[in-house]
Amino acid sequence: MSHFLPVALEHASRLLNHGPTILITSTDGTRRNVMAAAWSTPVEFTPPRIAVVIDKSTFTRELVISSGKFGICVPGAAAIDMTYAVGSISGKEGDKFERYGLASANGPVLGLPVIEEGCAAWLECRLIREQHTEEAYDTFFGEVVAAAADRRVFDNGHWLFDASNPGLHTIHHLGAGKFAPASSIVSAKPL
Amino acid sequence: MSHFLPVALEHASRLLNHGPTILITSTDGTRRNVMAAAWSTPVEFTPPRIAVVIDKSTFTRELVISSGKFGICVPGAAAIDMTYAVGSISGKEGDKFERYGLASANGPVLGLPVIEEGCAAWLECRLIREQHTEEAYDTFFGEVVAAAADRRVFDNGHWLFDASNPGLHTIHHLGAGKFAPASSIVSAKPL
Repeated sequence: MSHFLPVALEHASRLLNHGPTILITSTDGTRRNVMAAAWSTPVEFTPPRIAVVIDKSTFTRELVISSGKFGICVPGAAAIDMTYAVGSISGKEGDKFERYGLASANGPVLGLPVIEEGCAAWLECRLIREQHTEEAYDTFFGEVVAAAADRRVFDNGHWLFDASNPGLHTIHHLGAGKFAPASSIVSAKPL
Repeated sequence: MSHFLPVALEHASRLLNHGPTILITSTDGTRRNVMAAAWSTPVEFTPPRIAVVIDKSTFTRELVISSGKFGICVPGAAAIDMTYAVGSISGKEGDKFERYGLASANGPVLGLPVIEEGCAAWLECRLIREQHTEEAYDTFFGEVVAAAADRRVFDNGHWLFDASNPGLHTIHHLGAGKFAPASSIVSAKPL
């Protein structure tokens, strides 16, 4: 049974607000791919827009440019090994969904592969073409058109990291296969 | 005594690789500012380049554009309250360094305010003007020209989050004053 519920678009940027490492998914209708990416950021809440960095050497970049869209899945700590694995080989060498036994569904708006098992959230994004920043900084802008999250860890627009859901805490890649999972929430006190 | 040591420029992007919430500092020589920012990402390792999102309403944006440079400080969990405070009011209302008693030094290359107390790292960046992305996405690109980190938490190019240094673990803003500090490191296992 899926624990995923739709996330209102005005809350979609919060899924990436705290800098989690993500999976970028892509498809051109016949081929598909998934890669890990540490480098992304929201750039706007409304409309929800984000930037992701996709290297020139990647198969993902080919698919994203040819299809004009990309998906984002936000892995939880239970998916650290899978995340590192799909970040370590190229989709040019074969279908990584099959290789690692990753179940995916088709996103509701753009039909992008979305992964729920081991993940805390996913988003579907329409590419906003910006050829100069793509070339100069490998930076791709996108607008989120659909999003969903596991209600055990994200509800009503808010992350709920606590001791009840450690496997769904987002992960933050430090380099070389080392990750810092998000710890339980701390609230700032007014100064 | 400062625990900060210089970080080699080829390792500078790793300071931001895992999506920490940062402080952006700025000065035009007579005025200065510091604001909190959750939205940033590296875009290149060599040369070390990053993107930060700076809203049109901010005093920081004025100073960054007029001076052509900005600083980044990476607060630790001990500085959660300070981070939220400097993210909650505008520098147009007065000098936040004075208001919150923040000690800062002048960075070695660009003379930007750098804060070490409560922080795990800092970087000095030269602005790379990209007027279209600044206007359309509030996204500013910069090249890191100097960096340093507290050797108790970042050494030889690697973060060292563990039980010995919780106050220096980076913080990741979830929204509305709630933060997830980075937890201790987990290493991926090969699949």
